[in-house]
Amino acid sequence: MSRKVVLYIATSVDGYIADEYGNIDWIERHVETLEEDHHYEAFFTSIDTVILGRKTYDQIVNELSPNAYPYKGTKSYVLTSKKEENQAEIAFVNEDVVALVSTLKKEKGKDIWIVGGSQVAMSLIRENMIDEYQIAIIPVILGKGIPLFTSLNNEIGLKTKSVYAKNGIIYTKYANH
Amino acid sequence: MSRKVVLYIATSVDGYIADEYGNIDWIERHVETLEEDHHYEAFFTSIDTVILGRKTYDQIVNELSPNAYPYKGTKSYVLTSKKEENQAEIAFVNEDVVALVSTLKKEKGKDIWIVGGSQVAMSLIRENMIDEYQIAIIPVILGKGIPLFTSLNNEIGLKTKSVYAKNGIIYTKYANH
Repeated sequence: MSRKVVLYIATSVDGYIADEYGNIDWIERHVETLEEDHHYEAFFTSIDTVILGRKTYDQIVNELSPNAYPYKGTKSYVLTSKKEENQAEIAFVNEDVVALVSTLKKEKGKDIWIVGGSQVAMSLIRENMIDEYQIAIIPVILGKGIPLFTSLNNEIGLKTKSVYAKNGIIYTKYANH
Repeated sequence: MSRKVVLYIATSVDGYIADEYGNIDWIERHVETLEEDHHYEAFFTSIDTVILGRKTYDQIVNELSPNAYPYKGTKSYVLTSKKEENQAEIAFVNEDVVALVSTLKKEKGKDIWIVGGSQVAMSLIRENMIDEYQIAIIPVILGKGIPLFTSLNNEIGLKTKSVYAKNGIIYTKYANH
């Protein structure tokens, strides 16, 4: 079995991945940590490559996790048109994300995590390149923001693999047919 | 405890309740009935009142279930500006849905099911009149259609009550705080 391309992302009940300003602080506000939740750690051991858009990368290193890069131990590909020196585990690539993922999928390795943002995710959804959708639904109707899904010409049939709730988060997993 | 106003509705993974033509045949196409599923029957015993928009009602009686009205044994309120003679169990009302539901909520009875369509649902969501959201997610990304949620000025925090999958359908249940 070849490595999978996995879109693992949190959305509101109405399908937003960020508020209208691109922020994700509403996630914490609507999740009460009452039970131990090892979902993320388990997921993280299944991947060795992460793909991020430039804005998502900047938000992570500047705002969300300024003291420690959260994806250490994996290879990160940051899609950007701005030239920047690569770091040991982080490559800044000016490449179409579909071409990049096609190349990486042919290489051996663990699964490939599509972190986001919406442009990166939607480019791959549109080309039907996502093998597995792991959508964590946060119990809030945001009302506005940046949606995960925008319009597609063709529907994509999925197969429900599993679902469970922990601390109010609904973890869904679907495989592409 | 007073009766609840329940929005029980099926959506695609990308949040559509109908395709771009208003049709819902994609639901059947993406659900394989392998296991017995009594979700609907159990839900139906919890309500005694259903609220529908005119287009939804017409679709049900003309296309989806022309031989037998599916909500027999309950009181149906059909929102319409077109005058029509009431039937024993079906009232055609030219009234704002928010006012109607406010009145019904004060009466004694079982729960009130908001069947749809999108205008009826969204009018009540916008006024935060939905006590319980029961969203059945069908495993397909439709790409386009009629969304359940449109924009809101204020977010609505929810409490996850339960979730499980049957025949690929993910049945989610959230309570309003």
